[in-house]
Amino acid sequence: MAKKIKKSTRISGLTSGTILHAGEKKSDGIKVTIIDYNEAQFQEKEVKKAEECFPFKDKPTVTWINIDGLDDFEIMEKVGKHFDMHPMVLDDIVNTGQRAKFEEFEDYIYIVLKMFYLNGKDNEIQSEQVSLILGSNFVISFQESQSGDVFNPVRERIRTAKGRIRKMGADYLAYALLDAIVDSYYLIMERMGEKIEEIEEELMLNPMPPTLQTIHDLRRDTIFLRKSVWPLREVAGGLQRSESKLIQKSTDIYLRDVYDHTIQVIDTIETFRDMISGMLDIYLSSLSNKMNEVMKVLTIIATIFIPITFIAGVYGMNFKYMPEFNWRWGYFGALGLMLMVILTMLTYFKRKRWI
Amino acid sequence: MAKKIKKSTRISGLTSGTILHAGEKKSDGIKVTIIDYNEAQFQEKEVKKAEECFPFKDKPTVTWINIDGLDDFEIMEKVGKHFDMHPMVLDDIVNTGQRAKFEEFEDYIYIVLKMFYLNGKDNEIQSEQVSLILGSNFVISFQESQSGDVFNPVRERIRTAKGRIRKMGADYLAYALLDAIVDSYYLIMERMGEKIEEIEEELMLNPMPPTLQTIHDLRRDTIFLRKSVWPLREVAGGLQRSESKLIQKSTDIYLRDVYDHTIQVIDTIETFRDMISGMLDIYLSSLSNKMNEVMKVLTIIATIFIPITFIAGVYGMNFKYMPEFNWRWGYFGALGLMLMVILTMLTYFKRKRWI
Amino acid sequence: MAKKIKKSTRISGLTSGTILHAGEKKSDGIKVTIIDYNEAQFQEKEVKKAEECFPFKDKPTVTWINIDGLDDFEIMEKVGKHFDMHPMVLDDIVNTGQRAKFEEFEDYIYIVLKMFYLNGKDNEIQSEQVSLILGSNFVISFQESQSGDVFNPVRERIRTAKGRIRKMGADYLAYALLDAIVDSYYLIMERMGEKIEEIEEELMLNPMPPTLQTIHDLRRDTIFLRKSVWPLREVAGGLQRSESKLIQKSTDIYLRDVYDHTIQVIDTIETFRDMISGMLDIYLSSLSNKMNEVMKVLTIIATIFIPITFIAGVYGMNFKYMPEFNWRWGYFGALGLMLMVILTMLTYFKRKRWI
Amino acid sequence: MAKKIKKSTRISGLTSGTILHAGEKKSDGIKVTIIDYNEAQFQEKEVKKAEECFPFKDKPTVTWINIDGLDDFEIMEKVGKHFDMHPMVLDDIVNTGQRAKFEEFEDYIYIVLKMFYLNGKDNEIQSEQVSLILGSNFVISFQESQSGDVFNPVRERIRTAKGRIRKMGADYLAYALLDAIVDSYYLIMERMGEKIEEIEEELMLNPMPPTLQTIHDLRRDTIFLRKSVWPLREVAGGLQRSESKLIQKSTDIYLRDVYDHTIQVIDTIETFRDMISGMLDIYLSSLSNKMNEVMKVLTIIATIFIPITFIAGVYGMNFKYMPEFNWRWGYFGALGLMLMVILTMLTYFKRKRWI
Amino acid sequence: MAKKIKKSTRISGLTSGTILHAGEKKSDGIKVTIIDYNEAQFQEKEVKKAEECFPFKDKPTVTWINIDGLDDFEIMEKVGKHFDMHPMVLDDIVNTGQRAKFEEFEDYIYIVLKMFYLNGKDNEIQSEQVSLILGSNFVISFQESQSGDVFNPVRERIRTAKGRIRKMGADYLAYALLDAIVDSYYLIMERMGEKIEEIEEELMLNPMPPTLQTIHDLRRDTIFLRKSVWPLREVAGGLQRSESKLIQKSTDIYLRDVYDHTIQVIDTIETFRDMISGMLDIYLSSLSNKMNEVMKVLTIIATIFIPITFIAGVYGMNFKYMPEFNWRWGYFGALGLMLMVILTMLTYFKRKRWI
Repeated sequence: MAKKIKKSTRISGLTSGTILHAGEKKSDGIKVTIIDYNEAQFQEKEVKKAEECFPFKDKPTVTWINIDGLDDFEIMEKVGKHFDMHPMVLDDIVNTGQRAKFEEFEDYIYIVLKMFYLNGKDNEIQSEQVSLILGSNFVISFQESQSGDVFNPVRERIRTAKGRIRKMGADYLAYALLDAIVDSYYLIMERMGEKIEEIEEELMLNPMPPTLQTIHDLRRDTIFLRKSVWPLREVAGGLQRSESKLIQKSTDIYLRDVYDHTIQVIDTIETFRDMISGMLDIYLSSLSNKMNEVMKVLTIIATIFIPITFIAGVYGMNFKYMPEFNWRWGYFGALGLMLMVILTMLTYFKRKRWI
Repeated sequence: MAKKIKKSTRISGLTSGTILHAGEKKSDGIKVTIIDYNEAQFQEKEVKKAEECFPFKDKPTVTWINIDGLDDFEIMEKVGKHFDMHPMVLDDIVNTGQRAKFEEFEDYIYIVLKMFYLNGKDNEIQSEQVSLILGSNFVISFQESQSGDVFNPVRERIRTAKGRIRKMGADYLAYALLDAIVDSYYLIMERMGEKIEEIEEELMLNPMPPTLQTIHDLRRDTIFLRKSVWPLREVAGGLQRSESKLIQKSTDIYLRDVYDHTIQVIDTIETFRDMISGMLDIYLSSLSNKMNEVMKVLTIIATIFIPITFIAGVYGMNFKYMPEFNWRWGYFGALGLMLMVILTMLTYFKRKRWI
Repeated sequence: MAKKIKKSTRISGLTSGTILHAGEKKSDGIKVTIIDYNEAQFQEKEVKKAEECFPFKDKPTVTWINIDGLDDFEIMEKVGKHFDMHPMVLDDIVNTGQRAKFEEFEDYIYIVLKMFYLNGKDNEIQSEQVSLILGSNFVISFQESQSGDVFNPVRERIRTAKGRIRKMGADYLAYALLDAIVDSYYLIMERMGEKIEEIEEELMLNPMPPTLQTIHDLRRDTIFLRKSVWPLREVAGGLQRSESKLIQKSTDIYLRDVYDHTIQVIDTIETFRDMISGMLDIYLSSLSNKMNEVMKVLTIIATIFIPITFIAGVYGMNFKYMPEFNWRWGYFGALGLMLMVILTMLTYFKRKRWI
Repeated sequence: MAKKIKKSTRISGLTSGTILHAGEKKSDGIKVTIIDYNEAQFQEKEVKKAEECFPFKDKPTVTWINIDGLDDFEIMEKVGKHFDMHPMVLDDIVNTGQRAKFEEFEDYIYIVLKMFYLNGKDNEIQSEQVSLILGSNFVISFQESQSGDVFNPVRERIRTAKGRIRKMGADYLAYALLDAIVDSYYLIMERMGEKIEEIEEELMLNPMPPTLQTIHDLRRDTIFLRKSVWPLREVAGGLQRSESKLIQKSTDIYLRDVYDHTIQVIDTIETFRDMISGMLDIYLSSLSNKMNEVMKVLTIIATIFIPITFIAGVYGMNFKYMPEFNWRWGYFGALGLMLMVILTMLTYFKRKRWI
Repeated sequence: MAKKIKKSTRISGLTSGTILHAGEKKSDGIKVTIIDYNEAQFQEKEVKKAEECFPFKDKPTVTWINIDGLDDFEIMEKVGKHFDMHPMVLDDIVNTGQRAKFEEFEDYIYIVLKMFYLNGKDNEIQSEQVSLILGSNFVISFQESQSGDVFNPVRERIRTAKGRIRKMGADYLAYALLDAIVDSYYLIMERMGEKIEEIEEELMLNPMPPTLQTIHDLRRDTIFLRKSVWPLREVAGGLQRSESKLIQKSTDIYLRDVYDHTIQVIDTIETFRDMISGMLDIYLSSLSNKMNEVMKVLTIIATIFIPITFIAGVYGMNFKYMPEFNWRWGYFGALGLMLMVILTMLTYFKRKRWI
């Protein structure tokens, strides 16, 4: 198990550009919270021992067990065993770096994906792997660390019995959590959108080499985002089409909604990609333009002065017999000749539309 | 609900180039108009209260309820509840920024897409989300604002009983509205076509940097259009294949026609894309050409004058003993030498086909 | 109806490059010819009134009604009504600018595609929309104008009873017409092939800017051809797979042949596309090459003369005390120094492989 | 028929680059050889008349009729008629330029593809269309000319009864021929591989314009090869999946092997394509590099000498009153000043990492 | 058989860039080891004769026969015959250069793929073809040479009875071997990841031509890796979907895990490809940038000095009558004029943002 953890970390060590930061996950122990509810009642508590979760397995109420931190193997395994989770599933839960996927088992559905949230302290975007186990009347969610998540609105809705969540089953709870996670992708989309607009403006004004780096970083971000969003779509689509008895007919429309959102996220990323490659083209051709301009100035100055410098050179020669030297208006004649050359050149350039 | 509205607006805040303008939607209240007809009779009226729509639900005649403006949640919800619309559908209706899609329910079909129309005042192209609810004997259409739509030809056909619309059911009415919306895409295609032709001509004459910006804007427009047309095709194709009992067999051929039109729109956009990328190539290579020309002029002038200026420089030296200075024809000999160099160079350039 | 004609014309107003010319269709009335045959007998006549076609509908012989010109709506509608054509089909027939497609109805199959033929007068390639209606024992073909078509070989085969055409049914006639139309695509392929070869040769010899325009035009032609050939393939493939009772089992192999031909046309166009994009690369890199050569000449001339001109400049200074001036061999020493510099430079360039 | 032969020749007149030569097919008559065998006996003979083949049709032994040359229509038609071949199949056999395909009929399977072989005389690669007719107990192969083929190993195996070929039926013979043909593609792959390696080496050493032409020719070759290999894959895949009773279950694994080989050929061609496009990039960027180097030399020489030439120019002025002229160390001071400028410049370039 | 070995070697002679080395396979004989186990007992031995393997075929325990080296045809054929392997399968086993694939037979499944391992001596990555035969209670693995493999962790797990391997059947053993092989791909991914990061850093600092070569080599590596990973995915996917009775239901989840890993490998390679092409863009545009900078320096120096050198030239002329010569401040006036020109130029450049 340890080997694989290391493996995936090394590869995803190729972190992306400026917007997404993997962030150091502080291993701050494990924290288990249980929310148990039905339409009539509601109970929320933090437990210390895995065994405290066990009675909720067979209670008719809906139970949401949220586990922050994946380091305490002992607790993990106890929970896994009690809730009949396959050892491979447990493997996938603790190995971050999974591709988003969902797997149907007889008694539960396993969903794993990435969520994004704002770090409380420095407002940076953090990403974390989330695993969901949907049983007949419980949902277990596993998060990498305790530093934050995107589930607070769901918790609030359960506590306040707002909306229909308290009236629905565990599958609706799973939907609500999924929806909260997909919503977290909009956070990044927004950031990227702002960045793209910023760069576009910058490009219009003054394309300097730093911009190239920024474009490159953005492109890298889209590459990484794509990599994690496309499988998300498969998950959403698959859940919607799933015929598992764990998902009730009435929840289908909500899953369709989640699916629509992932499609929209994908659409937006593809649009970003197109726009970024467009920006690169603009950047490169504006470089060419600049070069052209530089060359033109050089050419104009050089082609004007080279001939007249030559004329000056001729009359700088020291031959004994050079008739022009003795002419009364020789000097001014030479200056006039130079002026004529200049004017001819300027006319030529004008006709060429260079000036 | 409010959160999501904001969300989609932020992202689609990345508006496209020059042709498509999102335009500020003025929140100017809600306006509900009802058109009720069958082959024999016709009735059109504007109502103030949601309740006035209710009796039409069960009338055997075909009823078209058109709602402009999505701001009055109360009316919306009343209508939604009375016509048995799922809360998620109502959600989608009021959240503009939806991807075009259609969803079949037991009693109705929900279709959402974008339409384009000319703004009455300044003749600019506006885009707006339109939602259609097709029931067994009614169609409800939701528009973002009262500022304009593309349904007038349909209204006229109903009023004057022209064509077969008055003889057909609600599904034909839905087709007629869809067709009017798809037709609105041709409006933009035309504008883009004109713009492309314009730029092509410009490119042939004088590729200046501003052209690049225009090409870039056009490309952006195609990116955005593609994004909204491809799902449109899925909608049209899906409706055509749908086996809902709400769509009669005889309407199938009309839906096939709508489908053909969306395919044609897609074909045209793809052609535009190819043409625009072709224009970029031309633009860039004509930049190279220009550069080449500038370089050639510089090179020709420089390579002709550099050697003869050197000769002049040699005879400008002040050595005591330089035999040429005392020659009778020294000066003219030097001039002759220079002329020879010039002629040699010109011959060389001619052979190289530079001049 | 009038609106849509205008619509499609506007958009396809974006005509392609040099090979395909839309050509002004002269509205020269309508011309209806009937060819009626079976194995034993044959009859060919031109009729003036739509009613004259009607008796052929129920004759057991195979009847081919060819209608040139789409302007006489009255005749069109009469024919349409008598042969039970759906109004939407009639719509599609008169609206040129259709995407190639085929539609199966209970009593007939509707096929629409583009054909290409050589204009009789100036040998230019013309394109025209052709619609075919295949009934149980008749084929009706609609052409845009009377100016020419590709059906003469088919007519000849019917007249002379050559091949198997007189022994077969209406579906074989439809195949024969389709085959003649697909053959017409080879005409353009050939022209393009010649053009590509021409340009390739030109490119090898002297890539001048006009070539770029030609490449661009060719590319545009391929874009437009692709757009009309790909749906053609769907038509041929669909007909082959069709299970309509109007197409006999024995005709399947012929339709497969038509399908093979469209595949070959597509293959050729894709090959053209690849070759054209290859030519663009060659063109651009030969531009770079030319630029390089120009730069090298400039650099060689400049770097040789700049140092020796400097030497001449030094000895052109007017300082009172410059010992070299009084040396006996000062002048020749200076010339020798210059020669040395030149030789050093030439050696350097040689080593750099620039000369 | 004649028309179509011409047609396909014209288009494929666009021959590819340096490796593939269409070669002039000498019309050298027709040659029919028959190999008839079963496990116990073997017979090989050349026949003059088509009728001599006829008795083999119903013999229980496996018969391989090989026909070189497609010009003698009379013989072809006789054979075609006797072996119940559909006229369209005969058409395809004599019309070279077919896309590889296979068609199942009730009594036989028709396969057409391209083979490549080394010309005996000058060792050039030749390509030729081969058609195979697989009947219940016979295989008929049609080749374009007598100049050579790739079937000799198969003949040898039959003659010497090596391997399992003599024990198997006609379907295994067809497989053996197919396998020999697919093997012939490796011949070209090898040549291309060598050529690519050669160019890669050349590129590393000295990218000169001739290389571009070679790259371009290679690319053209891959375009043409792809065009003939992709349909080959469809043929091999189709045969493998075919449920014709002519192909026994036990032959399936051999056809799967042929299929694997075509996949490998396709993989190799796609790899070649990627490598060739990579070479183009290298070529172009090494052009840019060279340009950069040339520019740098020019810039260094020019920027060093331009300022000091100016200094020399200043002291070449003829003003009456120029105090420096009369200074004792004026001349050497000027030279020193020039030296200082040179050193400054060199330091600057060094810091810029240009030298 | 010999012919085909040569064939595939020649083509794959096009080895890839810097990371993957085909390495000379030393033909060091054949080595056969047998591991036989069930939950209770375990036996490991090396055998010399093929016949020693035979008894294990029908033993109820799980047997893993590992054969290193493919040169001893006699042993290979004996094994093949005893274990009922089809001759074509034996062919594929000894012909290295196979595309990864799996084939189901009635009594066994044949899997062939590439594995990568670190060479013991010089720590270079080696690649080798591995073939697996999965029977009802045995697995036979064939490796190219004895120099190393990736199966040691599996051996260890069997020996120590760690995990569930000793409790499961032959299909689980095959999974364990497959998993070990797929894990070996991560080895290369890691190396490539490191290389890419290295180049990215290098690029930021100083893009020199050697970098181009490295990028090109990396790209080539990805091309080759892709070629061997994509079919791997088909294998993993196919096994997972396979309905062979040799694979028990409970093993499915493990095969799904292998499939997930190959998907992850593919994702990573595609990301690498995108990143490498991004690096090329950066490389090329930074070349352009450098060129621009060089040009700017030249232009600035030249355009400043050309005009003032001209002024010096004018006052170097030797006309008898040049009034400025006699002016008291002529010389200093000229110097002042030059200074003015310099300042004007500098201002101009500043405004142009060139300096």
